[in-house]
Order: sequence, then structure tokens, then C-alpha cells
Amino acid sequence: MKVLILGAGGMVGRKLVKQILQTGFNSINPSDIYLFDLNFPNQHHTGVNLIKGDLGDPKQIKKLTTYRFDIIFHLAAIVSGEAEENFDKGWKVNLFSMWHLLENLKIEHFNSSSKYIPRIIFTSSIAVFGAPYPDKIDDEFLCAPQTSYGAQKASAELLLSDFSRKGFVNGISLRLPTICVRPGSANKAASSFFSSIIREPLNNKTAYLPVDTKVKHWHASPRAAANFLLHATTINTSILDNRRSLNLPGVSCTVEEQIEALRKIAGQKVVDLIISKPDPFIKQMVSGWPSDFEPERALKVGFKAETNFEQIISTYISDDLEKA
Amino acid sequence: MKVLILGAGGMVGRKLVKQILQTGFNSINPSDIYLFDLNFPNQHHTGVNLIKGDLGDPKQIKKLTTYRFDIIFHLAAIVSGEAEENFDKGWKVNLFSMWHLLENLKIEHFNSSSKYIPRIIFTSSIAVFGAPYPDKIDDEFLCAPQTSYGAQKASAELLLSDFSRKGFVNGISLRLPTICVRPGSANKAASSFFSSIIREPLNNKTAYLPVDTKVKHWHASPRAAANFLLHATTINTSILDNRRSLNLPGVSCTVEEQIEALRKIAGQKVVDLIISKPDPFIKQMVSGWPSDFEPERALKVGFKAETNFEQIISTYISDDLEKA
Repeated sequence: MKVLILGAGGMVGRKLVKQILQTGFNSINPSDIYLFDLNFPNQHHTGVNLIKGDLGDPKQIKKLTTYRFDIIFHLAAIVSGEAEENFDKGWKVNLFSMWHLLENLKIEHFNSSSKYIPRIIFTSSIAVFGAPYPDKIDDEFLCAPQTSYGAQKASAELLLSDFSRKGFVNGISLRLPTICVRPGSANKAASSFFSSIIREPLNNKTAYLPVDTKVKHWHASPRAAANFLLHATTINTSILDNRRSLNLPGVSCTVEEQIEALRKIAGQKVVDLIISKPDPFIKQMVSGWPSDFEPERALKVGFKAETNFEQIISTYISDDLEKA
Repeated sequence: MKVLILGAGGMVGRKLVKQILQTGFNSINPSDIYLFDLNFPNQHHTGVNLIKGDLGDPKQIKKLTTYRFDIIFHLAAIVSGEAEENFDKGWKVNLFSMWHLLENLKIEHFNSSSKYIPRIIFTSSIAVFGAPYPDKIDDEFLCAPQTSYGAQKASAELLLSDFSRKGFVNGISLRLPTICVRPGSANKAASSFFSSIIREPLNNKTAYLPVDTKVKHWHASPRAAANFLLHATTINTSILDNRRSLNLPGVSCTVEEQIEALRKIAGQKVVDLIISKPDPFIKQMVSGWPSDFEPERALKVGFKAETNFEQIISTYISDDLEKA
């Protein structure tokens, strides 16, 4: 079995590789794991293959597909804030790389005498949704993205779904909650502050809060994200009835509740390191984001996440803070 | 004011041109109307510009956009049956032509000292939906297309919506009901039989019915379609709140009710010309199609259609049959 992870240099990618190596993942040999990304900061796994490259380049995608991977995790993306600022780059990487990937996998599918149908696990996002929302978003709610990132993820889902329906690949799109608490430094995602208001204070640093504390959002930990991805490789996709985009479980809470959970775990002095600093650009983007879900289908097929924000903070403390 | 109609050689395109010339459309001069298509069968309008070309060719699209049209009707498509059979051609024309069109219009937008934001009316389809359905599909129901055609239309909608949100163009996607009764001969759309079972008998010809008479579907006449397109040019799109894809009004009825309406209008002898001839390919495609809608948003902004199937047959008789 050969596994490819696109965007493996990112935070979720690193967590996933670690999880694969720790759990054994069907006794996979590290030499059968291929990581693809522009760069691999803090990537210290031995035995796996690192391929530096650019998903914006169709030729590199074509070359990759000739390896005939059994499982492809597609985590690569231009994140929300950057896709909003750099419109063309966002569409190029977030949508067209999916097209080139699928087109070339289709060529491999038809090139083979044996049946080649790779499993593709694609990290989509709850940014595919757009306000106004019901109290809880159910599995039949429309995609009406209000950001370029969300529109790109929603269209990539449609491509993956149609190539899968035709039997060229076997894909599944995971609409990840906002991943929180992210270790490391802030990225260009507009959602980055949801992590930094927990992470920075726990590391004795000041954090800036760009939105109102009433903002309610949908979260899962990096560990949960890696588990989602691994779990998705085990699902019998035929039971999805060609609805291959899943809203995943998570924790719905307000920034106020996030801060309260931090207070319980780390005390008032830590909380005092959070400083309000409104940012109209972030505020505007976040105002269109969903806050709560009823992810019945994902729960039914066995996806699991944390059930409250204190658990999410504890996961950060045990997985990342103590090792820092 | 300059107007471009992409796919003007098709049946709805011809109806639209006729309607524009008849109604005057803000006193437009025929020489300011440009029709684009591979071919123009039965196109007998004088004074308008005919451009033969292929939307699959990005260079031709680029050239077109330099004309700086004020209104662009985008009706061009590989129809459902053909898109299912010819996978690559469907994606190329139904999705990528939209990308090239929008990318080049964006270049024109930024090239201009004056504000150039063309209005784009895109004919999408109820094929963006996929079973299982509620009794009536409301305006918040998800897109889960079960055909390549539907997936292509849904992704093109997402592109148009995001380019519009950014202010590069001012787009609106119209999810047309199945257009029925189509004049002329059958096309490659899997829905073609909904028209032929009415049209052929009225023209004293045998018609073949490939599905069960219990099949329920969503219809509007060609005249209603042309009116939808014209009405869409008058809407203040800011009231759509960035939900620029509209489910349009139509008539929900079963094939049995279609036949009953035909019997009332034309008698039993005409109905006797319909012969059952099951087609598994068509049956399978149609089984995933929606049958009824609650198109509140479209009604609220003034879209109108027929209210029963007899009206739809009468429209065919007065607009097309008598002239044949």
C-alpha cells in the first residue's frame, strides 16, 4: 500500500503523518509514505519520502499520479485569508489542482489492466456554507460560500464527487471544523485567532482578539482532525449514496466560552494575556461563518470529535504544549 | 448597450433573441446584439451579429470579452445525456468555459478607467440537485448532483457567484425547470422525452415514452424560459444577498398528468400516438431528478411561469405548432 499526503508540510499534515507512523496504519512501511509540499518545516520523520513541489504546476501533479498511490490525502490549500487577498492563486491551487489531480488519476484508471481506483480523502471546510444559517446546520443545508476559499472548496468537492460517481476514484470530502488549538505560529487563515487566544496565553504571550466575544464557532482539535482523516480511509463509501461531502462533528462554542474554558484550566492570569483588538477585515469574514451543526451522517459512519472546549485545550496541552 | 448571447443557436437562445427583438429590450439596436454558437440552425433574424465559434477554445472567449458587452446571456452547454457520455467534453465546456469567460471579464474590469461590471445571466439547471429529496425542494436545499451535467452547472454557479461577490461581474444563475414543450427535433438531453411525448403526437407522429407514467417532474415552457432570462436582467442583484443561484417557478406534474392534459386539449387519438418503450439509461438518470419545488425567493423577485401543464401545451401550440 502506498500513501500520498498532499500538503503534508502543514500542521494537520504533520499530525497525520505522526499518527500514521504511531498507529502503524495497516502495517505500512514508512518508505511507502510520500509527503508532498512546497516546504517541510519541522518535519522530522525518518524513512518517509519527502517531495518538494508545487500543486499549482499541472506537470508535477501528472508525475505524482504515475506513482499510483492507493490512498491520497489532499490537505493542500491556500488558506482563507490568502485566497481572499490573492484571488487567482486561490482558484488555481484550491480548485484547479484538484482538476489536474483527478484528470491524471482518471488516465491511470484507464491505463491499467487491473482496476485502479485510488481512495482520496479531501479536506474541505465549513467555509462552504454562508449566512444566514438555521440554529444548527443539518446535512441537507445548501452551500452558499461567502468567501473565495469556501467557493473553491465547494467546487473541488463537486469535482471529486463526480469523478467518484463515475468510478474513476473513490473520494470523500471532509468539511473540517475550524482546527483549534493550532500549535506553532499564526497562519494567514482568518480563523487563526481562535487558536492564538488559547495558545499564546498558555505560552505566556499576549494574544489579540479581533472579534467580539459573542462570536460562536465550530471547533475540533488537530488530533481529532488527524483521526477524521484516518477514519475516512476505513469507510465503505457506497453507504454514502453519492453524497460524499460530510459535515464533521465538533464543538460549538462562543469566544467567551473558549476563554472561560481557558480560565478553568489555566487561571485568570493566563486569561489576562488576551487583549481585545478589533479587526474589521477579520470581523467581516467571521460574521459569515457557521456556528453550529447537526452532523448526523458523519456521526452515523463513526466520526468522533471532542465534546467540549476544555477537552480541546487539554488536547493541545498534552499533544503540543508540553513538548514545546 | 451591447448584448451577447452564448449558445444563441439553441432552442432557448432563439426564443430569447426573438423576444428581445419583439419587445425592444430598452430600445436596443439589432446591430448591438451578438449571437455566439457553433452553428445557427433556423436562425433567421436580420440585423444581429452572428459569430460562429467554440466556447471550448479559451482564445475565442478572450476575444469575445474585449467587446465589453453590458449583458451576457450564457446559455451554452453540453446537455445532460452528452455530458454523461462524454465526460471530458462536458467539464471543458460546462465548467471551464465559465472560468475563461470570467477570468477575461475580470481583466476587462481592471483594464478600464470607467467601471466595467457586465451583467451575466447564466442558465443553470435543477440537475444541480440529487435524490433523496423532500416533497418540495426549498431554497435552502443542498446541491448534490448525480450527473456530470449537474455537477458542472453547480460548480459554474459557484464561480459566477464568487466573481460577482468580488465585484468583477454581476452574475445570476437561473436553475431552469426542464423546458417543455421544446419545438423541433429531440436533442441529447435525457429529459428530451418530456417534450417529444407532447410534440410528436400533436404533429401526428409516434412518440416513445422511456419511463413510467408515475415519474413526476418540474416544467416550464420555452416562452417562460425566455421571460426568465429577460426578467433576470432587471433585478437589483444586491437584494439577493450573495445567493445568486435561484430555483425558478414551474409546473410540477407526472407524465400521467402531462398525458391527461394532452388528452383534454387534443383528444384520445393524439394520445394514442404515445408508445411505451422503457430505456434503462434514461430511467436511471431521471430517477435522480427532482419533482417539485417551493421557489420562494424567485417568486419574491418577480419570476413567473405557467401554473399548469395545459398552459404549457397551449403555449407550444400558439408559439410553435401553428407556425410549423
